[in-house]
Amino acid sequence: MLAAFSIAPVGAGESVSSEVAEVVRLVRESGLANETNAMFTNVEGEWDEVMALLKTCTEKVAERSGRVSLVVKIDYRRGVTGALRSKVEAVERHLRAGA
Amino acid sequence: MLAAFSIAPVGAGESVSSEVAEVVRLVRESGLANETNAMFTNVEGEWDEVMALLKTCTEKVAERSGRVSLVVKIDYRRGVTGALRSKVEAVERHLRAGA
Amino acid sequence: MLAAFSIAPVGAGESVSSEVAEVVRLVRESGLANETNAMFTNVEGEWDEVMALLKTCTEKVAERSGRVSLVVKIDYRRGVTGALRSKVEAVERHLRAGA
Amino acid sequence: MLAAFSIAPVGAGESVSSEVAEVVRLVRESGLANETNAMFTNVEGEWDEVMALLKTCTEKVAERSGRVSLVVKIDYRRGVTGALRSKVEAVERHLRAGA
Repeated sequence: MLAAFSIAPVGAGESVSSEVAEVVRLVRESGLANETNAMFTNVEGEWDEVMALLKTCTEKVAERSGRVSLVVKIDYRRGVTGALRSKVEAVERHLRAGA
Repeated sequence: MLAAFSIAPVGAGESVSSEVAEVVRLVRESGLANETNAMFTNVEGEWDEVMALLKTCTEKVAERSGRVSLVVKIDYRRGVTGALRSKVEAVERHLRAGA
Repeated sequence: MLAAFSIAPVGAGESVSSEVAEVVRLVRESGLANETNAMFTNVEGEWDEVMALLKTCTEKVAERSGRVSLVVKIDYRRGVTGALRSKVEAVERHLRAGA
Repeated sequence: MLAAFSIAPVGAGESVSSEVAEVVRLVRESGLANETNAMFTNVEGEWDEVMALLKTCTEKVAERSGRVSLVVKIDYRRGVTGALRSKVEAVERHLRAGA
């Protein structure tokens, strides 16, 4: 499955990039396929792998901030892998075909 | 922690209320404090309890649809319970005080 | 259409209930059907009505905080009204029928 | 402001890449800075520009499907531009500094 998630401390100042960096470090060390953009970090893996990672990340941010906000969007398809890349490629193919 | 979530099969027709009903049934049987509104179901519990419930619900919907979309928003505060009710009450108190 | 939204100032302290109360006041004054729960405020209306309200609310919170986070989920169905209530009723009907 | 959004027809089959491609085409023609990844499309612009684009995209998808689901996350900061790139760079800088 694919998960896009965004974790932010509540009430820790307007700049949250150091907390986000700690989360991204944990994601990259996880071994799961991942990609960080300006709004979300996308990861691909099995349910238990992805959720264990989200728990680790949330608890990491909660060490410094008593309150944490987490937004997650999941695209769950059994037996599909490589979707982090293939979904974008499918859209690009459609766009080229329609040109 | 509090979690608001919305689960929907992808590509299963425009009316998804029977799938939603199955999910709500699982939520009510879970023993966690919960509330279903027109857009999300809110549940309150510990991380592992809530995530186990979300996994059960997602797999239930996936039985009938190969692809499932899940949106979750979490408000994580260590040591806070009863927030499903107290958050709304705090807002109402502010509104009365400001009247 | 139905919209569920959550607005929060970034970096304004852990307790955000006064900002949320200001937003809820604006929503209730809008004349749109609405309901506030522990995680989101739901409103029902036409696209332009709902989006004008979200802009007003976001700018209100931005008066006190330079950075604002907004999460919105929309269920868009042309020609459907009363869904704030009817969606929950449809789920309850399914649950009773399945009992 | 930055907006990450995901639009999907409800009940239009499991593969939604042609609808997503139509949306991405509209986004790229809008002139706004944008980036599409496996889960969301990110756009940067003023509130009215971004919301006009979201309305156009939603109505486009609604032409083929009577019901459309839209998820949007907004990072609203007055006077900040170039954040589509600078947010990711800030995280990378933190990661290098912490290495």
